[in-house]
Order: sequence, then C-alpha cells, then structure tokens
Amino acid sequence: MSQAQVSDEDIFTGHERGKLSVAATRPISQARDLSIAYTPGVAKVSRAIADDAALAARYTWADRLVAVVSDGTAVLGLGNIGAKASLPVMEGKSVLFKTFAGLDSIPLVLDTTDVDEIVETLVRLRPSFGAVNLEDVSAPRCFELEAKLIEALDCPVMHDDQHGTAIVVLAALRGASRVLDREVGDQRVVISGAGAAGVACARILRAAGVGDVTVLDSKGIVHSGREDLNPVKAELAKLTNAQELRGDLAEALKGADVFVGLSSSTVDGDLLATMAPDPIVFALSNPDPEVHPDVAASYAAVVATGRSDFPNQINNVLAFPGVFKGALDAGATAITENMKLAAADAIVSVAADSLAVDRIVPSPLDERVAPEVADAVAKAAESDGVATAVAR
Amino acid sequence: MSQAQVSDEDIFTGHERGKLSVAATRPISQARDLSIAYTPGVAKVSRAIADDAALAARYTWADRLVAVVSDGTAVLGLGNIGAKASLPVMEGKSVLFKTFAGLDSIPLVLDTTDVDEIVETLVRLRPSFGAVNLEDVSAPRCFELEAKLIEALDCPVMHDDQHGTAIVVLAALRGASRVLDREVGDQRVVISGAGAAGVACARILRAAGVGDVTVLDSKGIVHSGREDLNPVKAELAKLTNAQELRGDLAEALKGADVFVGLSSSTVDGDLLATMAPDPIVFALSNPDPEVHPDVAASYAAVVATGRSDFPNQINNVLAFPGVFKGALDAGATAITENMKLAAADAIVSVAADSLAVDRIVPSPLDERVAPEVADAVAKAAESDGVATAVAR
Repeated sequence: MSQAQVSDEDIFTGHERGKLSVAATRPISQARDLSIAYTPGVAKVSRAIADDAALAARYTWADRLVAVVSDGTAVLGLGNIGAKASLPVMEGKSVLFKTFAGLDSIPLVLDTTDVDEIVETLVRLRPSFGAVNLEDVSAPRCFELEAKLIEALDCPVMHDDQHGTAIVVLAALRGASRVLDREVGDQRVVISGAGAAGVACARILRAAGVGDVTVLDSKGIVHSGREDLNPVKAELAKLTNAQELRGDLAEALKGADVFVGLSSSTVDGDLLATMAPDPIVFALSNPDPEVHPDVAASYAAVVATGRSDFPNQINNVLAFPGVFKGALDAGATAITENMKLAAADAIVSVAADSLAVDRIVPSPLDERVAPEVADAVAKAAESDGVATAVAR
Repeated sequence: MSQAQVSDEDIFTGHERGKLSVAATRPISQARDLSIAYTPGVAKVSRAIADDAALAARYTWADRLVAVVSDGTAVLGLGNIGAKASLPVMEGKSVLFKTFAGLDSIPLVLDTTDVDEIVETLVRLRPSFGAVNLEDVSAPRCFELEAKLIEALDCPVMHDDQHGTAIVVLAALRGASRVLDREVGDQRVVISGAGAAGVACARILRAAGVGDVTVLDSKGIVHSGREDLNPVKAELAKLTNAQELRGDLAEALKGADVFVGLSSSTVDGDLLATMAPDPIVFALSNPDPEVHPDVAASYAAVVATGRSDFPNQINNVLAFPGVFKGALDAGATAITENMKLAAADAIVSVAADSLAVDRIVPSPLDERVAPEVADAVAKAAESDGVATAVAR
C-alpha cells in the first residue's frame, strides 16, 4: 500500500487550533430553544436527575463520554515530554473515537505524574465521564495506575497502549495463523519488550491459549531466576517462559515460530534465520520497525509492522473505538479479559473472507471493524456479568 | 414578548443523550488523514510543543477551551443537588458558549465540595484547558473558591453567577438610566440578596461609580454593626451602606431609586410604593420574580426580570460568552474589573439605538452582543496589561 507524501507543512496545518470542536446537538435559534436547553427548562431535567441519578445516563452526555487521560510520560516513541506536548496525540485519539465508533471523548492531560494523584483527580471528576482511556503513561507506573483506577472507578477503564495493542497483536496472530493453517496455541512466541505493550501482549496470548511465550526486556530474557525484576516482571516470569530459557534475543529466537517486536531495539536478519521455518514476524516499533519489512520478508512467511506504508498494519485503532463502544453500549462496569479476547476475534472475523499473507488484519480505515468489535465486546460483557444495560 | 409553549416532553426530548457532541475539525477518510492527525504525523507536533510550550496555543484546542466547572452545590434555584444533576446546566452553558461566541467548552463536574480539593483538581488539569467558568457553586464558598483559583491558575477564571450577573445588571441599569435620562451614579440602589450575585452586583455598581448601595441578606440590611457577618459580608458592609441604614427591606427601600432582587424572597407592591418616584425594579429571581412584573409596572418606570416571557430579560448569556471570548482572544491571564465594566458598556452600546423602557438591554438571542463584548473585553485586557496575545 502506497500513500501520498505528507509534508511537515501538511502536518502542522492539519493541527492549527487543534483537531477537536464541541458542538451543540440541537441548535439554539429562538427563545424557545433557549428555554429548553437552558433556563427555565433545564431545571426540570436537573431536578429529575437529583431525584433519580440513573436518569443522568439518559439526559446527559457523560455516561457515554470517554475521558482520554494522559500524564505525558511515554508519548509515542518520544518519551516523557509532558502533558501539554501529549495533547495532540490525545486529540487524535478523540478524533478516532468519533470517526470509527461515533463516541464523544475529551482529552484530560495531567500536570502530575503521581499515580495516586491521578487516581484521586479522576475519582473527583467521576460524574463528568463514562469511561477512561489511559494513554501514553510510562511503565511500570501504567500497571499500578490502571489497577488502581479499575479499583476506584465503577466504569470501563483501559490503558490502550497495553490492551489495545495486545488485542490487535492477538488478532493479527490469529489472522496469520489461519493463513498459514497453524494452531495459534501451538506456536512458540518471543516478545521483545516488557513495557506496557509487551506485558499486555504476553498476558493476552497466554489467556488465548498460547502455551509458550518468552518475553525479553533490555537485560534479556525475563526469567524467575533474575533478581532485578519489578513486581510486574516477576509476575510475568511466572506466567511465561515455560522452558526456563535464559540469555539474550539470539537464545530466545532459536526455533521460535513468532517474533513480536515491541521495543525500539533492532533485529538482524541473521537472527530471524535461526527461527523455525516460515516464521511470523511482527516488527511493531514506530516509526522504525525492529527489522525492515523487506528484510524480514526474506526469512518470514508473514510480516507485519505498525506502519501504514507496508502491508499488515497492526494499529490500535482496530481495537479501542469498538472496545469502548461495546463496553458503553453494555453499560459495562469494567473491561474483562473475555471482552478483550472477543474484540480480537471480531477483528479477525471482519477480514475472514479475504485473509492473505499480506492481509492478516483489516485495514485501519475499515469501517466495519468497530461495530463488529463493539457488538462482540458488549456480548462478552453480558456473559461476564459486568453489563448493566441492554446493548443499544 | 410571547413564546411558544414548552412542554415537559419538549424539555426531556431536548435533553436525550445530552446536548453536546465532540467533532473532529478535519475528517479522517483516507490513510493520509490518519498519518496527519495520528501516527506518525502527530509525533512532529508533539515534539515541537515539547521543544516550545508556547506552540500548544497554536496546535491544540486547549488554549481556547473553557472548562465549565461546578460542584453542584447551588444549581439554579434548586440548591445543592450534586454534580451529576448539575450536568444538564453545564451542558447548556457549553451550548451557549458555542452558539454565541463560537467557543469550545467542556463541563467538568466534581464529586467534591472541598474548596482546596477543587482548586487542586483544576491545577492538575491545567494543561487541558484555557479558562475556567465557575458555575452554581454555593456562597460563601464560591468567593473563596474563585479567589483561590485566580491565585493558582494563570488563565481567565470567572464565577458566572457572580460576575456574569453583575455585568448584565450594570448594563441594564445603564440602559434604564439612559432611557429615564438619569445618572447611574446618583441613584440609591437596594440589592436584596447577599449571595454570589448580590455581592458581585454591589461590587460592580460601586466600581461603576454608584455611591449609595444598600445590600440585604436574610437577616436584613448588611451593616458594619452586625456581628453575624462572614468575612465577605463584613467587607461588603464597608463597601456599601454609606447612610449606615439598619433594619429590613422596608427600611432600605424608602426613597430608593433602584431595587435589584437577587434572593428568592418576595416584595409587596406596597413596599415599591415607598421608593422614590418612578423607580427602577429588577426582580431577577428565577423562575419566580420577587414581584410579578405586571404588579411592579404599576409602581415603577422600568421593570426587568430574568424571564424570557416578559420584556427586559436580564440574562447572563448577554455577558459570559463575550467575556470569555474577549479574554481568550487577548490571551488574558486574568479577568479584571475593567474588563467586566467594559463588557457592561458593550452590552448597552449594542442596544443604544433602540433603548426604550421595555428594551433596556438587547435580546439574549442578539448575535451582535458577544462579538461586541469580546472586542471591548480584549481591549480592556490590553490596557490593563493582562493580555499576552494580539487580539485575533
């Protein structure tokens, strides 16, 4: 897939004055409109909600509003650039929520990186929104923050850099496995990177039945003999590395069926040559994949990247709009593991009729994806008992 | 002015799913759009802001975004009904910001009524917005909250129930005085109510040169001999009541030229008869004015209310959209007294050619008002030295 050249001027012009706008759903053009939307009419609606809080879901926007929350500590590949500089990314996220799932959302970027302060802030603002999309928060803080938010808030909370990525990687692995006529669970998967995305990918692959997953951080293979592991990695060591491998990427890749790159390291073609025959290679670092897809293609049966200018783009936008829509449609109080697994299935199912080595997932612009994902997620919420509403 | 009947069904239907929506300012329809608004393009914009924070004003929406903030403690005339029930009012406010000033805004309603916690929350969220419209916060907490927010935030902050009301009351008094060919400053003004609106009205009238202002709370005339005054009222006692009156409304109204009703009390026609000849009566309680305008009209030369179904509607919407637009246009770091006075002048000037006893202020739907107010406010910001931008 080729695409028209995008210049810096195009990019900056496309961001002038920001990318979002708040609109009134009903115009105000006469005194009557004012009497309905504002005083005196609005008093009746406020009084009704004061009498029955459940009516807020019907008569305000908040119950279906996603707060896109970041502290700017791990923005794209740019690192800790702060809240203000993270805003264009959060606005972009809101644009995608609207475009693909029709969901309203507001960026809330925070001038604190203290996990408890962020939780406290969102607890205080709880009546203002209906779900939280955490974004670009650095690891390992992101794990603690997400866990504490899930505990503190009675609404869907998801750190997209973890679970959005994990869902799409699982979908892509399912798509690639079908194309190659392999069982997902039988393959040996090596994940390079134990940050937000790496940890969540390892967890969802294990939950999806992949028996043999090995994860590496900057020090090498994560194994239970290491004494430098933070609690998240220590837990990961128990969940993964059934063969108790030790060493570096070269050690891990020998005979592996799948490589998932989620660090910003590089991988030589020589290393890929040591994998099992016809391996699957997902080189997902942005903007520079761990290995150039053309190089990877000379060793691998299926190659995917995060880039839009190569086939098989693995992009979170395939997951998060539909996941949040489904969760909100169901009035879900949480996003469960089954909801994530259902989202991955739904992504693959959209591409089912046209799967090919250069088409293991649908295009990020495929408008069928989010509704399918939403539907599957809402159903999973119902069967998991976290739904409070009939799906709309 | 008559208006079509508005039924409860009209009102509730007009609030289904809320009144706001977030839109993308530029559509996403092809891969190129995605590359600009999201990855990889957005990274360049984020990096540019990380290098030069001032660019956030140009490339994000936040610098011109108004946070409409409430804790739900004094919602319309409904009292402390809580954050969730206040949301329809805040959404209505956002609708008006957009309709009259083209400004984007987001309701942020808080599940805490602790002044310091509200301040702390907004300080943490500071990179997310460009101004704060405080709304429906109970007195006297609202005075402390506004003062602390102004101190803590380097952006425009205004409690609309105080200053929006005060600006429009001053504008209306100027309009009425011109119609009656009287000097604003020479009149003796009685304000019933020492809550948010009453206090702010007294202050702006004094700042506008009205020498004799008497304020009453539920205990009677506010005077410096009283020992039950909170700090705000104690300060008010020094600023007002030059004649050192004591007693009740009957005492205060004797010979007064102007009555401004900002409590939910009632006033008999008999009392109005004791005022100076041809007085001005603003009975602003909503939905029930202190005295029915038809009754007031048999005593007064000019009558105004807050209602849309009588002439001379004194409605904050004449002030706040333009005040915030002007402040943001000027890049103002604060909203000064002169900016408020300029806003009042601008409101009157729009109606200048058509002033009459039943038209002392423009219609709330008059689209000329907000741009005129914005222009005047931005100029006042510049002359007060609080502007940081050339007016756009």
